[in-house]
Amino acid sequence: MARIALDAMGGDHAPAAPIAAALLAIQELGPEHQIQLVGRASVIQEQLNAQLAAAPALLVEAATRFEIVDAPDVIEMTDKPSVAIRGKPQSSMAVGIRLQTEGRSDAFVSAGNTGAQMAASTFILRLHEGLSRPAIGTVFPTAKQPVVVLDAGANVDCSAAELVQFARLGSVYARDILGRPNPAVGLLSIGEEAEKGNAAVKEAHQLLLGAHLNFIGNVEGRDIPTGSCDRGPIDVVVCDGFTGNVLLKFYEAVAPMFFGMMLKAGVSREQLGSVVHSLDYEKYGGAPLLGLKGVSIICHGKSSPEAIKNGIFAGIRAVESHMSQHIREQLTS
Amino acid sequence: MARIALDAMGGDHAPAAPIAAALLAIQELGPEHQIQLVGRASVIQEQLNAQLAAAPALLVEAATRFEIVDAPDVIEMTDKPSVAIRGKPQSSMAVGIRLQTEGRSDAFVSAGNTGAQMAASTFILRLHEGLSRPAIGTVFPTAKQPVVVLDAGANVDCSAAELVQFARLGSVYARDILGRPNPAVGLLSIGEEAEKGNAAVKEAHQLLLGAHLNFIGNVEGRDIPTGSCDRGPIDVVVCDGFTGNVLLKFYEAVAPMFFGMMLKAGVSREQLGSVVHSLDYEKYGGAPLLGLKGVSIICHGKSSPEAIKNGIFAGIRAVESHMSQHIREQLTS
Repeated sequence: MARIALDAMGGDHAPAAPIAAALLAIQELGPEHQIQLVGRASVIQEQLNAQLAAAPALLVEAATRFEIVDAPDVIEMTDKPSVAIRGKPQSSMAVGIRLQTEGRSDAFVSAGNTGAQMAASTFILRLHEGLSRPAIGTVFPTAKQPVVVLDAGANVDCSAAELVQFARLGSVYARDILGRPNPAVGLLSIGEEAEKGNAAVKEAHQLLLGAHLNFIGNVEGRDIPTGSCDRGPIDVVVCDGFTGNVLLKFYEAVAPMFFGMMLKAGVSREQLGSVVHSLDYEKYGGAPLLGLKGVSIICHGKSSPEAIKNGIFAGIRAVESHMSQHIREQLTS
Repeated sequence: MARIALDAMGGDHAPAAPIAAALLAIQELGPEHQIQLVGRASVIQEQLNAQLAAAPALLVEAATRFEIVDAPDVIEMTDKPSVAIRGKPQSSMAVGIRLQTEGRSDAFVSAGNTGAQMAASTFILRLHEGLSRPAIGTVFPTAKQPVVVLDAGANVDCSAAELVQFARLGSVYARDILGRPNPAVGLLSIGEEAEKGNAAVKEAHQLLLGAHLNFIGNVEGRDIPTGSCDRGPIDVVVCDGFTGNVLLKFYEAVAPMFFGMMLKAGVSREQLGSVVHSLDYEKYGGAPLLGLKGVSIICHGKSSPEAIKNGIFAGIRAVESHMSQHIREQLTS
């Protein structure tokens, strides 16, 4: 059973996309799961009515499984992160996240302003002992199984100790959310050898050798698309948030570039279909902010209803697997 | 007119691939260009004889345009960089590069051990005033025109001042080798805004504003595959060597992954052909080591004869355009 607070005002296509996502979710989820739609109550009600008018079969279901939680402030995509804490304390983000500290909700999901979500999540939920910032855990599709890459942008200047924390956070994520029993952790560098890399990476390599993780050594950029290196499959790739963010955005853009070239070369949309689908980020349903005493799932601002629905599912998996508790245990082990 | 010293012993397929490359090159190049085949003379002669036996029409051409320069030591791919300077002073790398300081050659091209080539090039040719290490300039295929990305691995922990140097080196490279009259330089970061990025990038952004380059601000990972951002086309992307190396290897691996998935999805090899060709790194012919008082072109260890031939052409363009001299002027302007 999980109660998911969904930011109805967050994302480029809000409130339509989050509310459509909630309607998709309840059709797939068991009746024990509840969704809290957080935002301007009147706007949410109006949008919900409009969507239910087109799907009257969902009326009863929606009435029993949705709760509208009013939050008069709206955070814009262009707002600074701090606005979520100080400027707009009654935003859908602040209100939606606060439901967890009040014991009324188990997870928060948003496609809104990422910086604001990170600030509000950290401020309201707090971090586990020993962490200074949360990390963003993302999933990269590969030729084999998907791989967790972190940090993807929350921490730009990283110490070796922080890279080791990412390894711990990523291991729990891979185990709890992706179902990898003993996640293989690679440290992203520019050569396999322990002495290759920048200063933080070289130090982190030594620390990881004694970290009681399934550390498989350095991995390189080329090992991510294949999902493996000469030491076997990779489950987690650890890097600083600058490198991770650059790679993530590069990957997101390179696939459409390939597909565009394929179409120009005469490949049909049908032929492309299965490949596009297997590389589709939307399947992986948002990136959790790892290290919080609670659950906060970041969805892409451009998310479709399907993508936000998968964000809701990721939130449920995080709750049901007790990911946050496992992270606390991993950090203190 | 250019005299190119080619490392006949360098690369996974040496000496066959470099010698085949030299034979390809002389068929396309005007008679004013000479190629020096550097390595163990007996090995080169034997390999050359074997290849000429299969192409007797090239016998006279080869005799007049090749010079074999004996270098008894061979640097292995697994050797440490310093071996090129101290351990094996008569290697094809050391001998081939030294030809420039002796006034006997204009450029050096190798598919051998990159670290050794960098060390030997820096030690023998020396760097222009104000540089502490050379930078590796690579060319990324994009949906539009190719983009120069640097540094691609020579400098892992970079200061803001070094990032500005890369911008200068990359501008000259884009102008002289790729023919871009006023290269647009982007600084790779995790957001468009000047205050986004790690500490070195934020400081470099400010320095670049006053560097008298065509600086178009920060660019993101997603702007590389498209070759442009909302401020127009991009010619040069500046980043530290850690990020650049990770991206380069990621890009090199992601294309085969896509193509593999396409083939599995039933797309024919013929349909893929044109796309594979337009993304082919081999066309761009090696990465120059920028900042040297001379010319040294790095080819991938796995290079085919075609790729090494393009490395030879890149060397000739660097010589004929006076790239090294333009770099000196750019650094002191």
